[in-house]
Amino acid sequence: MRSIAPQWLHDILTTLYQRRTATRAEIIAATNLNAGSLSQALGLLMKRRIVRRVGIMESNGGRKAELLQLNPQTAYFVALDLGGTRARFALLDFVGDVRARWEQDIGTGKEAAAKKLADGIRIVLADLAPADRHRVMAAGISYPGYLDEEGRITAYNLGWIRSPILNGLKKIIHMPMFIERDDFTSGLAERWLGRGQSSTHWIQIETGMGVGFGIFNQGVQIRGWRKLAGELGHVTSDANAEDLCKCGRRGCLEAIISTPNIMRQYNQRVRGKAEDANNLTAIFERARRGDRSALDVMTRVGHALGTALAWATNILNPELIILSGDIVEAEDIVVPIVREELVRRNLPETIDGLRIVASPLGVDVRLKGAGCLAFLSTLNDPETLLRICRTDVPARTNDLHPASLHSEARSNTSATPV
Amino acid sequence: MRSIAPQWLHDILTTLYQRRTATRAEIIAATNLNAGSLSQALGLLMKRRIVRRVGIMESNGGRKAELLQLNPQTAYFVALDLGGTRARFALLDFVGDVRARWEQDIGTGKEAAAKKLADGIRIVLADLAPADRHRVMAAGISYPGYLDEEGRITAYNLGWIRSPILNGLKKIIHMPMFIERDDFTSGLAERWLGRGQSSTHWIQIETGMGVGFGIFNQGVQIRGWRKLAGELGHVTSDANAEDLCKCGRRGCLEAIISTPNIMRQYNQRVRGKAEDANNLTAIFERARRGDRSALDVMTRVGHALGTALAWATNILNPELIILSGDIVEAEDIVVPIVREELVRRNLPETIDGLRIVASPLGVDVRLKGAGCLAFLSTLNDPETLLRICRTDVPARTNDLHPASLHSEARSNTSATPV
Repeated sequence: MRSIAPQWLHDILTTLYQRRTATRAEIIAATNLNAGSLSQALGLLMKRRIVRRVGIMESNGGRKAELLQLNPQTAYFVALDLGGTRARFALLDFVGDVRARWEQDIGTGKEAAAKKLADGIRIVLADLAPADRHRVMAAGISYPGYLDEEGRITAYNLGWIRSPILNGLKKIIHMPMFIERDDFTSGLAERWLGRGQSSTHWIQIETGMGVGFGIFNQGVQIRGWRKLAGELGHVTSDANAEDLCKCGRRGCLEAIISTPNIMRQYNQRVRGKAEDANNLTAIFERARRGDRSALDVMTRVGHALGTALAWATNILNPELIILSGDIVEAEDIVVPIVREELVRRNLPETIDGLRIVASPLGVDVRLKGAGCLAFLSTLNDPETLLRICRTDVPARTNDLHPASLHSEARSNTSATPV
Repeated sequence: MRSIAPQWLHDILTTLYQRRTATRAEIIAATNLNAGSLSQALGLLMKRRIVRRVGIMESNGGRKAELLQLNPQTAYFVALDLGGTRARFALLDFVGDVRARWEQDIGTGKEAAAKKLADGIRIVLADLAPADRHRVMAAGISYPGYLDEEGRITAYNLGWIRSPILNGLKKIIHMPMFIERDDFTSGLAERWLGRGQSSTHWIQIETGMGVGFGIFNQGVQIRGWRKLAGELGHVTSDANAEDLCKCGRRGCLEAIISTPNIMRQYNQRVRGKAEDANNLTAIFERARRGDRSALDVMTRVGHALGTALAWATNILNPELIILSGDIVEAEDIVVPIVREELVRRNLPETIDGLRIVASPLGVDVRLKGAGCLAFLSTLNDPETLLRICRTDVPARTNDLHPASLHSEARSNTSATPV
């Protein structure tokens, strides 16, 4: 163990985390480790059952290569996404799959609501047998808006002004907590688990209750002076627009393209006469069938989104634009309009070869990102990393099956409060 | 020499280049070298007369500290700025000061025009005594628009489409040439010699024939996938605007705020009746005195500039906005309008503490940046770096005076064609 550098262990574990499965040759290509160091470190990790063989690949020339994977039971992480009016909780295993979920209204964000967050965390933790709970290493938390120096959140779209909710939570739940803004967590998820793996220069826009925006340049996330880069949601998209934003101004991008604002615009146009006006999927479907009101709204959404992405493209020259969150479901409707705005507002050189793709992470993007944050931050601490790598993972039967296949099938209610 | 690492020499020289003068303690703070390494490397550099003592500072506690400076005569660099219809040439010394200048029309950018560039370079080189010409290390070239894989430039605002001018130049002038886009060179100048030294998160907008835009995040310039980041000049600032841009579209930021377009708008308003309509300074002065047409134009310029900077600020969260180029002269007129747009289009958190400053580099920003590029690229090559550091600089009398003080007083015409 002494001759194995913590950095080798770190690089092997993060490579397997990103790729899910990899051969030794692939790990060497990704980490630049030499074969000897890899062999030594893998020897330890396999002895401890932290890394395991899940198959044999036939490689060129008939040589066989072991396919390796992380053992999901090595360690667990709590992920908490404060992105909407409902907090979303998950217990994630060592490969980043969701093992248990919970959702809960949190309301005003006052300190009293911290108890609800603590309850939610306990609910997902209860999915683990008591003997395994010491394997929970940390919580990753994705928050919207701004965190001030006293740890209070201001999130206009949730109506939270200097909410002390996280400080309250820390008083109740005692485990390492890593806290980042939602633009960072969703960027992290795309970078490690989503479409951002295929490029080093990309931007990502995510819609839901609000609008998130992430920027990667040369593989590094651009966060700005006070980590407030990517505040695209509150850029004034249309100076003449009447749309009132929760921040108090009019015409913000968020006031046009966020999920509640798509519903609001549709409701205003049909004057409350449509039965499913608060069903986003139904609005998208009506737009596809040529319903005038739905099409008007989605055309406006497409132009606002396209204008914002045109500015971002001019400024940042990305190779890839990733759409994520609720808007992904309307990809077929909005992407052609976005392309139109990109062509109209950019020089041909800037958009030549630019791709627009939809994220596979769906509404989980921030939750998964919070999990990535907890995983990566934990492994970045050499002491904790060595503690994990020095501990045997118990042998279990039938655990070669990827955890996601059975865990995702569980309903939320399978988790019970402790 | 063997025991002095090239990296130490590199770090000492670049620190003195950036600061002009520094004490040993300041160099240690900037480079993280230990005192022994610094002493060894400085010993060599001072013996070769590459670094010299220019004064003694009284430091705290009465101890005296040597003030050190680079010897301007150590090496020379050619800088070439293709930013406008006139190419600008300079011969820069080792401290980055201009020793000789030349300006020349280059017209269409066709290969034939390459000869004019070569002539311009020879004119500034002629300022050096023949015995010193071997000290010219490289040329730095700042180009507008886009360089394709065949080395051809497309710059819409100059009317150059796939111009082979640089390839032509390389056939005539044989010295190492480092070539970068104007957004990069002006960023480099601000980073090394201008206002960008005071922050690691800043954006810079520069106006002249076109519009340049540079982005620094954590001290690193953001260049994008194909190094086309910062194409703010051709973002559609006003989708309803009639202003025709040289790129063929309407309402580009450049079509409103570039120098020729400020003149055009003023001319249209006064219907050619003002005598000094092509004098930018006169237009700014009229606006200050309340002339309606001039004020209308400058108000429009301010709003377009402010809108673009508001988007950029939302996306990038800078600490500092640096204005440079021709617009600096109208700082007092446009900055209040820019601030208005920033407040209107950003959340308070994003612009809290944000500063807007004017660059001291004036119209030389790209020329100086081209010089920085040649200096830094030359020093980045260990072989050339060692060659410089192994060569004595001739001792001269009266050369302690900073070169800029006498060289800048020379008129362009003092340099004669060779």
